[in-house]
Amino acid sequence: MTAHMTPDEFRRYGREVIDWIADYYENVESLPVLSQVAPGDIRAALPSDPPEHGEPFEAVLRDLDDVLLPGITHWQHPSFFGFFPANASGPAILGDLLASGLGVQGMLWATSPSATELETHVLDWFATLLDLPSTFRSSGSGGGVIQHSASDAALVALIAALHRVSGGRTEREGVGSGRYAVYTSEQTHSSVEKACRVAGLGADALRKIPVDPATLAVQPTLLREAIETDVRRGVTPALVVASIGATGTGAIDPVGELADIAHQHGAWLHVDAAWAGVAAVAPEFRWINDGVGRADSYCTNPHKWLLTNFDCDAFWVADRAALVGALSILPEYLRNAATESGAVIDYRDWHVPLGRRFRALKLWAVIRWYGAEGLREHVRGHVALAQEFASWVAADDRFELLAPHPLALVTFRLRAGDEATRALMERVNSSGELYLTHTVVDGKVALRMAIGGTLTESRHVQAAWQLLSSP
Amino acid sequence: MTAHMTPDEFRRYGREVIDWIADYYENVESLPVLSQVAPGDIRAALPSDPPEHGEPFEAVLRDLDDVLLPGITHWQHPSFFGFFPANASGPAILGDLLASGLGVQGMLWATSPSATELETHVLDWFATLLDLPSTFRSSGSGGGVIQHSASDAALVALIAALHRVSGGRTEREGVGSGRYAVYTSEQTHSSVEKACRVAGLGADALRKIPVDPATLAVQPTLLREAIETDVRRGVTPALVVASIGATGTGAIDPVGELADIAHQHGAWLHVDAAWAGVAAVAPEFRWINDGVGRADSYCTNPHKWLLTNFDCDAFWVADRAALVGALSILPEYLRNAATESGAVIDYRDWHVPLGRRFRALKLWAVIRWYGAEGLREHVRGHVALAQEFASWVAADDRFELLAPHPLALVTFRLRAGDEATRALMERVNSSGELYLTHTVVDGKVALRMAIGGTLTESRHVQAAWQLLSSP
Ligand SMILES: Cc1ncc(COP(=O)(O)O)c(C=O)c1O
Ligand SMILES: Cc1ncc(COP(=O)(O)O)c(C=O)c1O
Repeated sequence: MTAHMTPDEFRRYGREVIDWIADYYENVESLPVLSQVAPGDIRAALPSDPPEHGEPFEAVLRDLDDVLLPGITHWQHPSFFGFFPANASGPAILGDLLASGLGVQGMLWATSPSATELETHVLDWFATLLDLPSTFRSSGSGGGVIQHSASDAALVALIAALHRVSGGRTEREGVGSGRYAVYTSEQTHSSVEKACRVAGLGADALRKIPVDPATLAVQPTLLREAIETDVRRGVTPALVVASIGATGTGAIDPVGELADIAHQHGAWLHVDAAWAGVAAVAPEFRWINDGVGRADSYCTNPHKWLLTNFDCDAFWVADRAALVGALSILPEYLRNAATESGAVIDYRDWHVPLGRRFRALKLWAVIRWYGAEGLREHVRGHVALAQEFASWVAADDRFELLAPHPLALVTFRLRAGDEATRALMERVNSSGELYLTHTVVDGKVALRMAIGGTLTESRHVQAAWQLLSSP
Repeated sequence: MTAHMTPDEFRRYGREVIDWIADYYENVESLPVLSQVAPGDIRAALPSDPPEHGEPFEAVLRDLDDVLLPGITHWQHPSFFGFFPANASGPAILGDLLASGLGVQGMLWATSPSATELETHVLDWFATLLDLPSTFRSSGSGGGVIQHSASDAALVALIAALHRVSGGRTEREGVGSGRYAVYTSEQTHSSVEKACRVAGLGADALRKIPVDPATLAVQPTLLREAIETDVRRGVTPALVVASIGATGTGAIDPVGELADIAHQHGAWLHVDAAWAGVAAVAPEFRWINDGVGRADSYCTNPHKWLLTNFDCDAFWVADRAALVGALSILPEYLRNAATESGAVIDYRDWHVPLGRRFRALKLWAVIRWYGAEGLREHVRGHVALAQEFASWVAADDRFELLAPHPLALVTFRLRAGDEATRALMERVNSSGELYLTHTVVDGKVALRMAIGGTLTESRHVQAAWQLLSSP
């Protein structure tokens, strides 16, 4: 007999794990943010072979503390300011735990109707919370789905765009060579180039449009020129990706104008708002989504700045038929009455994987625990801290700000130059007191202070500035 | 101030959720396996707008019971025999809970060395447990990674194959039109066709090779002919996908022979062993992997039949350079000393998403809790039950078996024909006592009895046969 963990053992160990996590959050602030281990250190401390006999769960918890913890970079530390945040929260952790416990696989509506319907419903709720246009609601021809990541969202947006622009030919005949082009800003996240590679267009099909040096937003006239040049050469514009909150600097493209240009040439307009989009829970930040009513798809990641553990990318399309047309295949073993009726959504046709976890539970738990009010406060608090931080940078003449910072990302550097800026980053990161990362703006090395940790408060931002600004 | 869940609240609600799950497993057997709700029922019971104010976590648990549970098809019910299993287990649930609690994002080695090194290590362990060839170990030029799903694995295998066969041209110049072809059996899972569509080759690039009617395995001579025909026409063979345990019937292709044919023409050989591969934890089933030493990549899903909650697809490559070459892009904001040193793995270059969850924790917890011994017992038990079930079918002359059943999937039907077989399926499924699904074999409707639930015991299989065989 296989020795499964009994329900009583599960109760006991489950409590221990819950307590471990609660203790972790009580102590995380005292840990060095950035792991200081060397390559291979962790593996060297692990047994080279798997165990022949089962071990008690205590052994896992012990090794977690002794072996793994020194190799953890603490993304939940309140002084983690690197990349973009990857928020966890109590309700998300518990919602996800419920999904693990239920263990349902929602590839089809029929394989667990609640998994599909809650997801559709919560993404409608979320669209309401962000005040997204009605084009994306499931009551019309659009709708939302949870993707694994914003990179997956960019990929499926591209696949749907190719389906539509080719009249359904690409999924049978392929994308050809030099036949379709994709357009985005130089500032856009590398996931768009990755999508071009994965979708078989190749990186050469991607036109990186120069940005306005002041706003770092893409220049619509240059987009138009690039598209017109392609059209003259017989290349079909398939997709334009607009960024709302580009990774390096937080740049915001003029979505409406880009959408109009895209549509004039039959192309799809996808909005990558992976990090910044969630800020629209607060009405004063909804201007970032100006023009989104003309977009064909939109994504933002609650798993970045909205309290919902990875993985949770919210992705909406205005025309779900294009997505399903591009991705649906119905082999005999998946046929069922509900699918045949046409009255249900089968989310397997909305992304690459077949199987899917009940991810809507955690987003549902987050929205209910915090309410619209709590979500607004979460985002507002960080934006206010970032504005304060930026004012300190601006007031110190050793430093300079390098980009607009309307939300919670501040890009800055030492006027003394690249080397000094890099040295500063290395000094503060190796202190273990905080962690931030860099980018390059207009050829200059810049530090990125990304404020947005679940537990980040004013005192953490103050301490960071203290460390950064003291010689 | 945002009202986060405090560590003490987390302890309290965490215990409630743990108890909810333990109670669920104590009671799941008494619930109808297949949800009987109609489309829209669940959504109709949910409030149309998100809450303005936060709600207590109790409200989530209450709605879970009252609103969502009737819409759940219980994949963890011991009488769930549909599709393939989606095993959950105590150690996996708790390992995944720890991943949620830590909330690290392991896109780069540097962003949490333990997340990367444990994953590499556990996939080496797992290769040992399955006795996979040394080509796939990280100590050589290969290595393992956890993909979201077997569909994602097929997609990245195809991308890596295109990279290699084109000498690195495809990721720049695209895949062209009619230039590359992919080969697989008629029985292979639809994820391979989906991968061809997503990767821009189009479904027309997929050659579905006929199978031997007795074994349902692909016929190597027909593969060879198809490849040679393509080569004569100037089409480059890029990828051959062999199935070990095809979805409909569990068919097992002759991997070694297919690999040799693929390699003679420069193509990549990927093995899709999504469901069956894990059986190789038991030495008596290792014959299924004959010839895998000549494969270029291999995947199997612990999230199906090996006790590890979705998502967890184990994917190995013999040549990691091809994968990384196809998928790597290094923008400034991801540059770091460890990556530049070349001494580490950055798993973001091994799949489509950038961000990644610490999924190795749950697989590690499963392997340690069960040990090699426990994993063997798990698989052996189900195979023995399936053999018993098949013997009852064979002994009842109203029924016939339709395919070889060396593992835990039995494909069978009523001799009375398609309509009677379908009616039988509908009768048993609507009873709520069990759930099984169908396929078509050689034009005939067949039922699939997929045994493999974590909690499935002899009595559940007996009861199923009782229900199926009583008029
Ligand atoms: C043989 C085979 N390959 C691939 C898949 C797809 O699996 P996933 O949901 O992991 O994409 C399945 C699913 O049942 C399968 O049986
Ligand atoms: C603007 C933007 N888009 C896309 C991504 C990729 O996100 P994911 O990890 O969800 O693929 C990021 C990640 O930082 C991002 O900042």
